[in-house]
Amino acid sequence: MKKMLLFAIITVMCSFQAKKTTKIVFFGDSITEYGVRPDGYITLFQQKLKDNGKAGDYEAAGAGIGGNKIYDLYLRYEDDVLTKTPDVVVIWVGVNDVWHKRLAGTGTDYDKFGRFYTALIKKFQAKGIKVTICTPAAVGEKTDYTNELDGDLNKYSQAIRDLAAQNNCGLIDLRKIFHEYGLKNNPENKDKGILTGDGVHLNAEGNKLVADIMYQSLIK
Amino acid sequence: MKKMLLFAIITVMCSFQAKKTTKIVFFGDSITEYGVRPDGYITLFQQKLKDNGKAGDYEAAGAGIGGNKIYDLYLRYEDDVLTKTPDVVVIWVGVNDVWHKRLAGTGTDYDKFGRFYTALIKKFQAKGIKVTICTPAAVGEKTDYTNELDGDLNKYSQAIRDLAAQNNCGLIDLRKIFHEYGLKNNPENKDKGILTGDGVHLNAEGNKLVADIMYQSLIK
Amino acid sequence: MKKMLLFAIITVMCSFQAKKTTKIVFFGDSITEYGVRPDGYITLFQQKLKDNGKAGDYEAAGAGIGGNKIYDLYLRYEDDVLTKTPDVVVIWVGVNDVWHKRLAGTGTDYDKFGRFYTALIKKFQAKGIKVTICTPAAVGEKTDYTNELDGDLNKYSQAIRDLAAQNNCGLIDLRKIFHEYGLKNNPENKDKGILTGDGVHLNAEGNKLVADIMYQSLIK
Amino acid sequence: MKKMLLFAIITVMCSFQAKKTTKIVFFGDSITEYGVRPDGYITLFQQKLKDNGKAGDYEAAGAGIGGNKIYDLYLRYEDDVLTKTPDVVVIWVGVNDVWHKRLAGTGTDYDKFGRFYTALIKKFQAKGIKVTICTPAAVGEKTDYTNELDGDLNKYSQAIRDLAAQNNCGLIDLRKIFHEYGLKNNPENKDKGILTGDGVHLNAEGNKLVADIMYQSLIK
Repeated sequence: MKKMLLFAIITVMCSFQAKKTTKIVFFGDSITEYGVRPDGYITLFQQKLKDNGKAGDYEAAGAGIGGNKIYDLYLRYEDDVLTKTPDVVVIWVGVNDVWHKRLAGTGTDYDKFGRFYTALIKKFQAKGIKVTICTPAAVGEKTDYTNELDGDLNKYSQAIRDLAAQNNCGLIDLRKIFHEYGLKNNPENKDKGILTGDGVHLNAEGNKLVADIMYQSLIK
Repeated sequence: MKKMLLFAIITVMCSFQAKKTTKIVFFGDSITEYGVRPDGYITLFQQKLKDNGKAGDYEAAGAGIGGNKIYDLYLRYEDDVLTKTPDVVVIWVGVNDVWHKRLAGTGTDYDKFGRFYTALIKKFQAKGIKVTICTPAAVGEKTDYTNELDGDLNKYSQAIRDLAAQNNCGLIDLRKIFHEYGLKNNPENKDKGILTGDGVHLNAEGNKLVADIMYQSLIK
Repeated sequence: MKKMLLFAIITVMCSFQAKKTTKIVFFGDSITEYGVRPDGYITLFQQKLKDNGKAGDYEAAGAGIGGNKIYDLYLRYEDDVLTKTPDVVVIWVGVNDVWHKRLAGTGTDYDKFGRFYTALIKKFQAKGIKVTICTPAAVGEKTDYTNELDGDLNKYSQAIRDLAAQNNCGLIDLRKIFHEYGLKNNPENKDKGILTGDGVHLNAEGNKLVADIMYQSLIK
Repeated sequence: MKKMLLFAIITVMCSFQAKKTTKIVFFGDSITEYGVRPDGYITLFQQKLKDNGKAGDYEAAGAGIGGNKIYDLYLRYEDDVLTKTPDVVVIWVGVNDVWHKRLAGTGTDYDKFGRFYTALIKKFQAKGIKVTICTPAAVGEKTDYTNELDGDLNKYSQAIRDLAAQNNCGLIDLRKIFHEYGLKNNPENKDKGILTGDGVHLNAEGNKLVADIMYQSLIK
């Protein structure tokens, strides 16, 4: 009888061990920094896990810092991501790499964007971490390609799509998703107020959409 | 008898006066500066006038200077255009206003682009000169909006379309025409070599297309 | 007797005519726009005229607009300055021509700065207006040439000094004056708070100094 | 007797081991890339070692790549420097961090310049490598602070001086040395042709001066 109990306890313990939690870290700029706010996309993603009874299987954390470009992520990936021992890293960066060219003369050269991004992916993959990468969603929400930075954002987004293919990463093509959402939901061709509050940072609708897409893409 | 002769002479003289030549000045940047070269669009335009027996009715001249932005045109319109006493001025500018933001930190603010353009149109119209304005054709010929400056060029092109409507100017929408030409003739999505040699300056095909379009738009 | 009276009246009238008021217009950017505020340098200049019993001899007006560069002044000199029928125009511009290169990618090329400045001076001089020009005082008040834009501001200031000599203009070398003031009064090498509130716009001390210097230079 | 011989051999061998060669790697941008050319400063430095009979004690190698900024060095320090197992690393960078703001909109933010520089120093020091850092010499050789980028270069140079003090690095203050050299040897205030060929890259005189200064600073 005692043996049976012991066996049962061991079985349950083993099953707990087997049911390992998958840790996901969202790594990015201000959009991700705001993602952990009560209405942010990471918070909504966590809520979704709870609602679907997956809160024991997955854990999500944010590692976003405002103003970050790809090389800033490279500088801090050890301190801010590896220390969290993630199983999955979602990288979402690119807006500042393009925007800061105009804003401060300190954007990221196109060739170096690819070089740092590749190096960052390889550092994570060398640790056995799964990497999913995202295209920059928007700087301005007009749908007719008259947002000032559309050309450069499209160029850098294409680079990210190529990087995903070359490095066997997951890809979440937020630029494409936001553009298609705008074609349906932005008939007046507004430059903000659809999925963002200011053309860049997510509003309630944007946080909801991004949380849904991240969930579909990352959670089995 | 003498009276008859005098009458005939006067009649002929009057008819010569009536058959006044229409002077067209093309006013712009390096694209127009190169337009007067042997294979340039202005030279081809002049040839077309001859071929169609219109060389007596129309005269065409170039007034392009490399690197010019809208405010450079405003600074030199008196010396370089009014002195040619044109009946028609075709303004084609905008590439440098956008490009020089990136290249040298000296592009033209969007609001000031409109302000100088309006002032220039009004100066010509106040002299009874007809004004036709053109959108900037291209900085890069890719058709999927991944040329770095596509967004800003589209934004400034829209401003030019609006200016034409507001000021009763002719409009030659070269940006639209080049884009549509590319959709048909640039299946590999090349960034140059279709209508331009370097993404900006016209090649033989480009000069031919622009000469044709200018002719259709300006010559009755 | 009547003749004597008539003669006296005429004499007085002539003397009134002779005692013509000299109109001075200060033409520039936000620094000059703020100059007409109650504590601004133009207001202090006007007060100084009153205190010295010169208010009948001189009139001063401001024509400053925030964000203006040299070519903006060229665009609006007729509407905003010539309509005031000035005898003297003081031009103070240059900060934005340099600063906007960094801030928005829309500064003024060095060669075009000189070209527009020369054209503007000549337009005024052709109307018989005396022209005095000023060097840009400061973007940052550090005295050891570690303000980010010091090199470019010094370069453009030298151009202005040369322009004054070439065109027989008065010169008020505010950059030199501010630098020397800082060497005496800014021992801690602060970047603001000496003659400016923010490194660019005059504080109370700055308005007082500029009013004094303008007065010494312009009033006999 | 045999034992004596063996002992002697071992002693000699040990003394050879003790006389270890010190490896110096010069790490930087195009100026250092050109430093390994036949007339470059690194080649002259190596010649100087030979001339002084120190070629057995010291070894020098270059690791310069054109266009590099501080974060580019950070990206490649493992592959390009650590693999050379240096005892001393000399970092000379900064020109592009400032210049590319204007040239391409892709310079380095001031705060991030310090952050990457600190991280790079610490990576080397953690491996027991001695680090000597250099201020950027010049972009333009005028001595009156009218080179366009003087202000920003002075600002970044000051940051480097502070970094050397904070991190116990050697400092070679090339900006100060070049400026003082110019005050003595550039009476006409030329913008190039003194120690550089183009305002940035060393000419024969510049290579000689830098080799001398590096030698004095690094070799005992």
